[in-house]
Amino acid sequence: MAKQHWKGSVLLAPVPPTLVTCGTMEHPNVLTIAWTGVLATHPPMTYISVRPSRYSYDLIRESGEFVINLPTSAMMKATDFCGVRSGRDVDKFAQCHLTPEPAQTVKAPLIAECPVSLECRVTATKELGTHTVFEAEITGVNVEEQYLDSKGKLNLQQCGLMAYAHGEYFALGRKLGNFGDSVRKKKKKRPEHKKQK
Amino acid sequence: MAKQHWKGSVLLAPVPPTLVTCGTMEHPNVLTIAWTGVLATHPPMTYISVRPSRYSYDLIRESGEFVINLPTSAMMKATDFCGVRSGRDVDKFAQCHLTPEPAQTVKAPLIAECPVSLECRVTATKELGTHTVFEAEITGVNVEEQYLDSKGKLNLQQCGLMAYAHGEYFALGRKLGNFGDSVRKKKKKRPEHKKQK
Repeated sequence: MAKQHWKGSVLLAPVPPTLVTCGTMEHPNVLTIAWTGVLATHPPMTYISVRPSRYSYDLIRESGEFVINLPTSAMMKATDFCGVRSGRDVDKFAQCHLTPEPAQTVKAPLIAECPVSLECRVTATKELGTHTVFEAEITGVNVEEQYLDSKGKLNLQQCGLMAYAHGEYFALGRKLGNFGDSVRKKKKKRPEHKKQK
Repeated sequence: MAKQHWKGSVLLAPVPPTLVTCGTMEHPNVLTIAWTGVLATHPPMTYISVRPSRYSYDLIRESGEFVINLPTSAMMKATDFCGVRSGRDVDKFAQCHLTPEPAQTVKAPLIAECPVSLECRVTATKELGTHTVFEAEITGVNVEEQYLDSKGKLNLQQCGLMAYAHGEYFALGRKLGNFGDSVRKKKKKRPEHKKQK
């Protein structure tokens, strides 16, 4: 194994190819953003990085609000389309058969077809070359009920989420394990079995 | 389909479960960080969010440098271990059979077993509740040569990268398409075929 050294570039992968909604229920817009991530757990903080040339940029600057919607693998074509076309030229909701739905804590709509939507309120804005970073607090989360089990626990793996890596979209594949598996003690055998020894 | 509305939480997924190295070749440390993402394309900017209680926190604060290494699915157990154990108590490189290798633009080592490593220099620091955000410029990229084709193009899908979603690790699955597929015109049939009509 040998390495090649290249100049700096954004080769981080996989990143989440999210559908970000902004504007209002009457005049909604949506764009695809993979330059997003978690900033802090408490308070729940995230960010999106947006090119100032994007139609959504002014909408988000003005309202200080947006919603991050997680698309499924079945929504790959719509997700790609909302990343390459502009809301200036085309109604992406209509074109991609997406349904705007009211959010609870922001005026920006969420996308009915997405299993999870994070309502976000901008707390800081920073310009970094090609992109402007909108830091935001996650003020509410919407989850599709069909992915909740009888105890109300979300089974996110059933949603069929998508990942983006270096210009390519992927379905999430085989589950490899749970957080903490590497140090978790194996469960003891049931007492009944022990007694039989 | 009906939605449940929950209070804000960091349900963004999938995020990249990276191995972040810091310190020096002589005294390296490594920790798992999924709270990372791309901030801007040019200059290439990223960030990591770190809890101040982590052993690596002071190392990164002092040096202003770190390396983001992308682990493969085969490295799931090591990735999990480096997220739950502390470098104060255990030599995670030795314990996980990871090999530190010199970087080119920072003193922090990279991990030989990872197919891609991003050398990063901190440009700004911000405290946000539970986590401190280290914004950084990506000053160099290291790529394992075996994933480069004859033209020198990186085929990242061959690396077998891993994704993290809501407490679970996943392999990247089926490729769904390329960026731009939704608007790309289909290639014309070859002239030979047309002539035969």
